[in-house]
Amino acid sequence: MQTINSIKEMQTFSNREMGEGKTIALVPTMGFFHPGHLSLMEEGRRRGDFLVVSIFVNPTQFGAGEDYEDYPRDMERDQKLAEETGVDVIFTPPVDEMYPSDYQTCVNVEEVTRNLCGISRPAHFRGVTTVVCKLFSIVKPSFAIFGEKDFQQLVAIRQMVSDLNIDVKIVGMPIYREEDGLALSSRNKYLTPDERKAALCLFRSLMRAKELFRQGERKTEEILSEVMSIIKAEQLAEIDYVKICDVKTLKDIEQINQETVLALAAKIGKTRLIDNIILNPSDCI
Amino acid sequence: MQTINSIKEMQTFSNREMGEGKTIALVPTMGFFHPGHLSLMEEGRRRGDFLVVSIFVNPTQFGAGEDYEDYPRDMERDQKLAEETGVDVIFTPPVDEMYPSDYQTCVNVEEVTRNLCGISRPAHFRGVTTVVCKLFSIVKPSFAIFGEKDFQQLVAIRQMVSDLNIDVKIVGMPIYREEDGLALSSRNKYLTPDERKAALCLFRSLMRAKELFRQGERKTEEILSEVMSIIKAEQLAEIDYVKICDVKTLKDIEQINQETVLALAAKIGKTRLIDNIILNPSDCI
Repeated sequence: MQTINSIKEMQTFSNREMGEGKTIALVPTMGFFHPGHLSLMEEGRRRGDFLVVSIFVNPTQFGAGEDYEDYPRDMERDQKLAEETGVDVIFTPPVDEMYPSDYQTCVNVEEVTRNLCGISRPAHFRGVTTVVCKLFSIVKPSFAIFGEKDFQQLVAIRQMVSDLNIDVKIVGMPIYREEDGLALSSRNKYLTPDERKAALCLFRSLMRAKELFRQGERKTEEILSEVMSIIKAEQLAEIDYVKICDVKTLKDIEQINQETVLALAAKIGKTRLIDNIILNPSDCI
Repeated sequence: MQTINSIKEMQTFSNREMGEGKTIALVPTMGFFHPGHLSLMEEGRRRGDFLVVSIFVNPTQFGAGEDYEDYPRDMERDQKLAEETGVDVIFTPPVDEMYPSDYQTCVNVEEVTRNLCGISRPAHFRGVTTVVCKLFSIVKPSFAIFGEKDFQQLVAIRQMVSDLNIDVKIVGMPIYREEDGLALSSRNKYLTPDERKAALCLFRSLMRAKELFRQGERKTEEILSEVMSIIKAEQLAEIDYVKICDVKTLKDIEQINQETVLALAAKIGKTRLIDNIILNPSDCI
């Protein structure tokens, strides 16, 4: 495994692999790997002849007062885990090469980024789509693997790729959960033991929603009110949003007649967590 | 020569050429070719193994009340001229394939697009950089050729390519002028014979600026006031702007100590024309 820091060097590397007829798979990450990341890498290894994992804590997707400075980093551990998982190249560019002093361009996906996290994190997705667009130009992957935990991010990236005609296949991978159901996230590291226990209310609320849905409930209002009451019963939890949206447009819907996502965000103590499940009427037939 | 309408087919074509180790040159145009366009194609032919010319009158770069509907089109004549100039592929996608109904992404270069034409055409450059980004993803050129008449467009595209790490070399080509000095533009077709004569005031004003500059004038105020008085003397002309800016940042400057562009826009009758010259102190040494 090789670690590449320079954008130019990464491009040269990718051009050479492509010139030899090899396909490249990319797993874009902010590092601090957990088994969820590793599952994306394993999928990348299955898809491409050559596997690149980028590690870049992207400042432009963090809002003022968010945790950019504190975001957990451990390059040595990440390199070891990546190597064990069969990664060929770790690409980890310095911030000032990604955003030089005269930097001034953004890629903005307008509609699917408005709802859900777009409300409380207004510049977040613009930062995400811009950096992913840059990473695609640098690494030139045929496949890029993203987790479904960041569901809105995945939808925004699919929309960007379709709108800008980027010739890459986007692969979404299921949420990786702890045994008790908590969705893996690098931010789980912030949780105290009490908060870790409290955070389970999110998964519990989603499981209750799924149960209601399986029993035939199709009114989002009914499902959401049960989900919210479960989370509100947990003292350490504070809801940002709980919504049921069309999986492609991410617009709120009232009655579940199509494939939808139940998405939620909540603070557990000071840590903001997100989670989601798919509710699809055709799964119930 | 081949004409390709489908985005997918163009991508497949480009992938095949690249797989055979060939480099692609792209000349993005809105068609209605004049010798200026042909000079870009000739440069493209010199640069790449394979030459693609796109013809797409891009609706998103026209403002409300601008000439999108009336913009001159003549595909048959363009195809003939392109074939004679050695073009390999004309790529001319339909509008609804470039912008399907759920389209929602834009690429915005923020600073260099604020001044000059960005003031009177606020959404223009966002439309340009977005469509050029799309064309780059579709055609995958190693070289892309643009004219220097649209100087701000060229600066914005260079900035986008640098910021988004797009692996393409941008080549700028000198303004192609009629014998009497009028810069070639597809929009010159709109001019009546009287307006055609009146339009010459633009070139005359630029030549006067160059003369003053060669004589040692470095105050932009002095140069601009002479340029403006020459244009104002022409009854059919109405100035939009006349400015002297740094060639890279396109910020106004007061004293010419670096390479600058004198850029202007004016309406001649109802037709908006632009023109520019470079004023570079190191050319005078």
